[in-house]
Amino acid sequence: MRLGVCYYPEHWPEFMWRDDATRMAALGIEHVRIAEFAWSRIEPAPGEYDWGWLDRAIDTLASAGLKIVMCTPTATPPKWLIDRHPEILPVGADGRRRAFGSRRHYDFSSPVWFEASRRICEAVAARYGQHPAIAYWQTDNEYGCHQTVLSYSDAAVQRFRTWLKSRYGTIEALNAAWGTVFWSMEYRSFDEIDAPVATVTEAHPSHRLDYRRFASDEVQRYNRMQVDIIRKYSPGRSVAHNFMQLFTEFDHYKVAADLDIAAWDSYPLGALEEQWYTPEVKARYLRTGHPDFASLNHDLYRGMSKLPFWVMEQQPGPVNWAHWNPAPLPGMVRLWSWEAFAHGAGCVSYFRWRQAPFAQEQMHAGLNTPDNRLDIGGEEAARVAKEIRTVLDAQGSADFNVKTSVALVFDYEAKWLCEIQPQGADFHYPRFAFEYYSALRALGFDVDIISARARLDGYRLIVVPPLPVVPDDFAARLAQSGAHVILGPRSGSKDANLRIPATLPPGSLAPVLPVRVWRVESLRPSVTEPVTFAAFGNTAARNGHARHWRDLLDLGDDGGARNGIEVRARFADRHPAWVQRGTIHYLASLFDDDSTETLFASIASEAGLQPVPLGDAVRVSRRGNLTWVFNYGPDTHTLATTIPDDAFVIGSRAIAPQGVSAYRTDTP
Amino acid sequence: MRLGVCYYPEHWPEFMWRDDATRMAALGIEHVRIAEFAWSRIEPAPGEYDWGWLDRAIDTLASAGLKIVMCTPTATPPKWLIDRHPEILPVGADGRRRAFGSRRHYDFSSPVWFEASRRICEAVAARYGQHPAIAYWQTDNEYGCHQTVLSYSDAAVQRFRTWLKSRYGTIEALNAAWGTVFWSMEYRSFDEIDAPVATVTEAHPSHRLDYRRFASDEVQRYNRMQVDIIRKYSPGRSVAHNFMQLFTEFDHYKVAADLDIAAWDSYPLGALEEQWYTPEVKARYLRTGHPDFASLNHDLYRGMSKLPFWVMEQQPGPVNWAHWNPAPLPGMVRLWSWEAFAHGAGCVSYFRWRQAPFAQEQMHAGLNTPDNRLDIGGEEAARVAKEIRTVLDAQGSADFNVKTSVALVFDYEAKWLCEIQPQGADFHYPRFAFEYYSALRALGFDVDIISARARLDGYRLIVVPPLPVVPDDFAARLAQSGAHVILGPRSGSKDANLRIPATLPPGSLAPVLPVRVWRVESLRPSVTEPVTFAAFGNTAARNGHARHWRDLLDLGDDGGARNGIEVRARFADRHPAWVQRGTIHYLASLFDDDSTETLFASIASEAGLQPVPLGDAVRVSRRGNLTWVFNYGPDTHTLATTIPDDAFVIGSRAIAPQGVSAYRTDTP
Amino acid sequence: MRLGVCYYPEHWPEFMWRDDATRMAALGIEHVRIAEFAWSRIEPAPGEYDWGWLDRAIDTLASAGLKIVMCTPTATPPKWLIDRHPEILPVGADGRRRAFGSRRHYDFSSPVWFEASRRICEAVAARYGQHPAIAYWQTDNEYGCHQTVLSYSDAAVQRFRTWLKSRYGTIEALNAAWGTVFWSMEYRSFDEIDAPVATVTEAHPSHRLDYRRFASDEVQRYNRMQVDIIRKYSPGRSVAHNFMQLFTEFDHYKVAADLDIAAWDSYPLGALEEQWYTPEVKARYLRTGHPDFASLNHDLYRGMSKLPFWVMEQQPGPVNWAHWNPAPLPGMVRLWSWEAFAHGAGCVSYFRWRQAPFAQEQMHAGLNTPDNRLDIGGEEAARVAKEIRTVLDAQGSADFNVKTSVALVFDYEAKWLCEIQPQGADFHYPRFAFEYYSALRALGFDVDIISARARLDGYRLIVVPPLPVVPDDFAARLAQSGAHVILGPRSGSKDANLRIPATLPPGSLAPVLPVRVWRVESLRPSVTEPVTFAAFGNTAARNGHARHWRDLLDLGDDGGARNGIEVRARFADRHPAWVQRGTIHYLASLFDDDSTETLFASIASEAGLQPVPLGDAVRVSRRGNLTWVFNYGPDTHTLATTIPDDAFVIGSRAIAPQGVSAYRTDTP
Repeated sequence: MRLGVCYYPEHWPEFMWRDDATRMAALGIEHVRIAEFAWSRIEPAPGEYDWGWLDRAIDTLASAGLKIVMCTPTATPPKWLIDRHPEILPVGADGRRRAFGSRRHYDFSSPVWFEASRRICEAVAARYGQHPAIAYWQTDNEYGCHQTVLSYSDAAVQRFRTWLKSRYGTIEALNAAWGTVFWSMEYRSFDEIDAPVATVTEAHPSHRLDYRRFASDEVQRYNRMQVDIIRKYSPGRSVAHNFMQLFTEFDHYKVAADLDIAAWDSYPLGALEEQWYTPEVKARYLRTGHPDFASLNHDLYRGMSKLPFWVMEQQPGPVNWAHWNPAPLPGMVRLWSWEAFAHGAGCVSYFRWRQAPFAQEQMHAGLNTPDNRLDIGGEEAARVAKEIRTVLDAQGSADFNVKTSVALVFDYEAKWLCEIQPQGADFHYPRFAFEYYSALRALGFDVDIISARARLDGYRLIVVPPLPVVPDDFAARLAQSGAHVILGPRSGSKDANLRIPATLPPGSLAPVLPVRVWRVESLRPSVTEPVTFAAFGNTAARNGHARHWRDLLDLGDDGGARNGIEVRARFADRHPAWVQRGTIHYLASLFDDDSTETLFASIASEAGLQPVPLGDAVRVSRRGNLTWVFNYGPDTHTLATTIPDDAFVIGSRAIAPQGVSAYRTDTP
Repeated sequence: MRLGVCYYPEHWPEFMWRDDATRMAALGIEHVRIAEFAWSRIEPAPGEYDWGWLDRAIDTLASAGLKIVMCTPTATPPKWLIDRHPEILPVGADGRRRAFGSRRHYDFSSPVWFEASRRICEAVAARYGQHPAIAYWQTDNEYGCHQTVLSYSDAAVQRFRTWLKSRYGTIEALNAAWGTVFWSMEYRSFDEIDAPVATVTEAHPSHRLDYRRFASDEVQRYNRMQVDIIRKYSPGRSVAHNFMQLFTEFDHYKVAADLDIAAWDSYPLGALEEQWYTPEVKARYLRTGHPDFASLNHDLYRGMSKLPFWVMEQQPGPVNWAHWNPAPLPGMVRLWSWEAFAHGAGCVSYFRWRQAPFAQEQMHAGLNTPDNRLDIGGEEAARVAKEIRTVLDAQGSADFNVKTSVALVFDYEAKWLCEIQPQGADFHYPRFAFEYYSALRALGFDVDIISARARLDGYRLIVVPPLPVVPDDFAARLAQSGAHVILGPRSGSKDANLRIPATLPPGSLAPVLPVRVWRVESLRPSVTEPVTFAAFGNTAARNGHARHWRDLLDLGDDGGARNGIEVRARFADRHPAWVQRGTIHYLASLFDDDSTETLFASIASEAGLQPVPLGDAVRVSRRGNLTWVFNYGPDTHTLATTIPDDAFVIGSRAIAPQGVSAYRTDTP
Repeated sequence: MRLGVCYYPEHWPEFMWRDDATRMAALGIEHVRIAEFAWSRIEPAPGEYDWGWLDRAIDTLASAGLKIVMCTPTATPPKWLIDRHPEILPVGADGRRRAFGSRRHYDFSSPVWFEASRRICEAVAARYGQHPAIAYWQTDNEYGCHQTVLSYSDAAVQRFRTWLKSRYGTIEALNAAWGTVFWSMEYRSFDEIDAPVATVTEAHPSHRLDYRRFASDEVQRYNRMQVDIIRKYSPGRSVAHNFMQLFTEFDHYKVAADLDIAAWDSYPLGALEEQWYTPEVKARYLRTGHPDFASLNHDLYRGMSKLPFWVMEQQPGPVNWAHWNPAPLPGMVRLWSWEAFAHGAGCVSYFRWRQAPFAQEQMHAGLNTPDNRLDIGGEEAARVAKEIRTVLDAQGSADFNVKTSVALVFDYEAKWLCEIQPQGADFHYPRFAFEYYSALRALGFDVDIISARARLDGYRLIVVPPLPVVPDDFAARLAQSGAHVILGPRSGSKDANLRIPATLPPGSLAPVLPVRVWRVESLRPSVTEPVTFAAFGNTAARNGHARHWRDLLDLGDDGGARNGIEVRARFADRHPAWVQRGTIHYLASLFDDDSTETLFASIASEAGLQPVPLGDAVRVSRRGNLTWVFNYGPDTHTLATTIPDDAFVIGSRAIAPQGVSAYRTDTP
């Protein structure tokens, strides 16, 4: 549990550096990330390197006891490089080459760019790989930011063809897998295949999905190149990348597999504004962010990180990039920091030390204002730094990991597939995954977010938001896990080539879920369908409603009896809305939030878990022998008196708005 | 009254063909449409034809007693052809050439494409023209689908110049007709004229209208080429094209004039979702479609078809292409089928035999599910097949045509013109034409939909939705018809060159409607204007409101008295809202639905017709000596006891939701 | 106070000209604007001039006693010129060259175009410069219409580089000023700098602002070229340009500085429909226009015009170019005309004499209908012509100027800057400037609208809508003025290079406003913040709310006491919402309309002015010794009996809806 900060010595006069370093250390910061946008200063002209300033900056920071997170500067290729090789610039879906003048203006598939990247990475890694102050590396910056994964350049198409050849072997196999006979789209060789763009009506969905997969793999390949260089020149240092919240254009699991640390950049207010939330939700959490958004990302990156995950950039105040940019309430920067640690973070690094008074992000707050006074965020960071000591003391040497009994499967391909073939225009995969996750968090559970390929044993409840393509062994692994499983609609509805399974959905899930989805329908937002949930245990029957989607299930002539299928909810027209077979549950629609939470609570109880409804303002997280409680709401929240007074390590029983309390659970 | 189905043998393993054919025949299907997307299988490489599979498929179908609708495969030119001649691809308004990878990727004006089309059509027609199982032909598939009529290619511009020269003779005549002196847009030769696109602000409206006319004529020319080839190689067979619902980018009347059968593709739920209806209306008819939408199209294509019109593709379940795709209620596929026959259809052909599990339309239902089980739509088709026998028996040998006293004029140019010069942003011609049609249907009338150039005699009521350009002889023909005529606002407001008539609107309608529209105004959707309708007959005066548009009428100094003009409704500011001169009525605005229906009922009564208000759920159609009643609503509808019990041929007096009844009207 | 009209002899057969001229004169029109779109008739082929028709048209008009406003015809370069030099066409932000076929299809930076313009202007000016009937000139037509200021052509980029070099001297200075070190955007020479377009994410804000400044300067340079030619060939005649309402892509002050007359084109209904107003406001003023919109423009152009400003085009009836085009209520054309004169207009010129029945604007009304009958607008113009005599008689020889004690600062760069860096998506500068102006007008004040560089002395109240960049001497001039000053939020928040001031906002305003804006936040439209306004004088404390934006103010440790700062309103979280230091007031947010009006009234009273709340329908203007009252509402407005009956020059005490009254204020 350490604090860090993002710092840009090149943005400030050199005389300020020493004071900055001293104040960072005094504030309790241990790590400083630098240089990810500094290429034009490192190499001001082709082949002419200027290391002096960077050497001095590193030495200044190191001499204050700070450890450096060194970055490769590839997110911002300089103008002279672009002018020499304009083919580095990516090509948009509109067929137009993008221009220099902001950032991420490169095409992952450009061979010229690949070589230029290799060269600058080697230069930086060779220069600083063995520097004693360099403790960590970051590759590039926020892959995927500004929709930069997909390019439609000739270079991308060339590599796509190779990728396809590698995947399918022969063009006949590809034609068969995609079903190109439809609409006479058959190819005679891989060289005939273009990017799936600019077509008269929608391009072939399998073609589109493969292009998304290819583009994702290009990111992985590019990152791996950088990682390999760093490992060669700077062995023993940890390598990280800072992923960005819900930038789902590439498979973060795959990129993270080559890293030591999966880091992410947490901007709770910007995310609230930019994501799918309704205006009412955006107003409710205006200056706190949604209580489950950062949490979801913490749980996601914790799972894919070999070492404890990081928040590489933590919002310290208002940002500049959302449509509207309110200020966090006082206390929220501290709350967000503790929330990260409670979820297992190794480091929370604030973006940025001082607000820059110029260029695109001049309206993005830092820990210090542009006139170099400590801002609220800075004060709160200092408080967190002090509290960390208390917490570490309280925790002692015991195991300090996050342990969960509940897993939620999150899948990047599912997002791409639902974009390519939504069938209902607002079928937004991350939203539905979030709703499932939020229901679990509102019931007080700690959650692991995992890939569909992850190990499933050890969980008692596994929740699977709509997962059209499931791995071949998924059904078997679900069964072996012994966990109760909740499968969202559309699960198993496609094979890996984006075709309907021969036996209809749920396809390869049939062994554990012997039903047949013979028909589906999507529903416009103004339409809902009544659903009646059967009574169970001591819960009365209740009514709710379904939204967005319906799978119509054929349970067999006997209504599923022979297969042990129980119908626990039905739509008004009597079609099953929720079926159970042993520990496997299948939801044939997406329900209203209350219904989702209630049915999740039911199944969790049946799985032997103890759900604790928390409402929409309070959230709980457990790590090691400590339990944290966060108050996102406008009212004080008071904890039960069963917790001894002396158990509190941070805060107390009464948690004020924007407050945090943490207490030991091993107190006798 | 026969059933058909669309079938794609190339999508399925050959071993399935025989079973498919057998089951089709057993289900009651007589016609099978094939091959419209099969070019890449017919000619897998340039000049290398593979007829074997198609020969075998045809023979298999024929041996089950099925008659084939053979298609030209031009809707999907194969990749090798596009790679050889990329200039076949159309160019969008954005100046970008579209790409291969879906369908309809061709430019009607491309000479290379014209020749390639001629070659493949001749090959197919020569091969199968005399085949005994080939009973019908279909040209291409859904001209105009995916906005593919207009192209902005060099080839199109070249042909446009020729078209203009042919229309205007001299450049001076064009300059005068368009009024290019405005904004110094004068041309010195036809070679200077480009497509009306990419201009700084709106391009010249006459230029735009002529480009639309030209593009429509290109479709006609292209289709005629195909028809000529088919007639040469396959004389005696009927030639059809499958038009698509409200794809109004070309003049369907003109294309149909070269065909034997005007067919259309009926997707009531997709249409509801994609068209102009309000969210409330979309929710109300979510799983039935609007009761007047398919009906309007039946009446439209019946009028332009030499032989009985067909529904070439009938929605059999949920589709994939609307923004949301709900499932039809059980019974609707049967209801839609009977509705088509009741309107005079010769054949209802379902799209498609079996849902394909791959490619763009994998979520489009068929009569069978992808795992080859008969779906609800298939069961309903089988029921219809049986019921057809009963109906044909009941009808016997009597005249079985649809006969109407009411006509509605529908005009494609009116649509283009209102798009080019809406004057009010939501002035959507098809919507207003639909509203007039719907009012007539809600009053129980059978309706002919006709061109403004069609014969008008025999009708007692002719309804003309806003028709800016009227044929020169229209006023005379209206007068000669003896019918009562209802003219919508904007009628006669432009001459053929898209200019305001010298004497102001209604221009050439003045002989029958001696008024002067001295001013118009368009109204934003949030604004309505009160209207007071005068009492008449035994109808009390009533208030309603006007929307969208007002024509301000000058009736002359004497208020129209000398000219025999009566004012039957006025706006709040006393301007006339509805004037009558003899049998000619002019509506100066678009009224609320209730007002429209009430005034149509009034005028119909005055015309000697007997309107029967049916509400928004029940509709009636008459063909031969049978009357059908359709129930689109959620409640049972019970017919009057004046109909003898034994008159019912299908169903009975009580018509359940989604139900159909048909009874003989000649029963003694 | 004279009337004019826009006339297009080239649109009509020559035999109509004499009658037109006679009727114009009879109606009371004195000025006729001609020829601004006549290039293709003046020079039908390269170098072949046809002056005959224009000579005759001018002579015909002149012989009726009319004075001509002669135009340069550069707004519509003819087709032959474009075909010879397609590089004249501007290039859009999409990288696509625009096409011929409407108007304004030229690139201000094209050298070929500059020369072609010079040549045609010289030809026209040489031909008619000394013609006795030519009394005025108009350059081009509506610079900026259809977003035509910005072009992204190579020519523009070339000139931009020169412009930058001239502004910054060295590339190092530019890099430092912009802060290109951010994201490695550093340039090594001016030749490396492109247009700020097509970037992956937002381009550099300083780069964008300079491109906007450059493009604005290009308009100024182009106009100056035309003015110079006119002055050379036609000395002594006044030169005007007709600006268009709120077309803010260039700095109207700068262009007007080269003119004698700043004219503008007034379309109150089109403006209402196209601008930011809510649907409710658009419905309320549907057929009158907003009472403060034309007024604001009158006050703006009056200030920048050396001679009395003109309305060069006055809406005479419905127009064609707004999304919806309602008709003005009877009386409004007269009201608008008088409103212009009451604000100091020298001439109101109607657009156009007769509605053209062809081309793009055929649905745009004129004083006469296309069938050449006088329309309502024409009748009202005739009435105004007569009333002008009465008013001039009443006014006599006294000073007839508009005199004000209240100024509002309007700034074009502020608009560009807020577009480039809105920080809140709906931070629309013209809207907020309008709201401040409207509050002043609703309090009965006459207002000067001035540049931030204008002289400030003589005013008692100066209102400054959000003004991010203030001139260096602005604070000093505000202080010297002695006026009470109201500064909107964000004022002084940027320096001229679009950087945050080193001491934070309000930057160079600090000498008069010693506060520190340490943080800002923008608020989505669904969010408002409660504000409590302190009691003052005999006004009770009141509550209101803030919208869109909050500046958080640091007043110093002593709450501003030492600096003499008083807090007059606070947000719910106690941050100051309105602070005062002597005569300087700073508003930290944008308040609801009622609050804005109330606080403006307070401050105005404190400044010794006497606000008179008028509500939302009635407005008052004073010129010379006359006071006009305009009634925009649906109810009669009756003036106080303190005005003697015999003071009324136009109308009377009771002002009917759409009515105008004017009375002498010097009556004893």
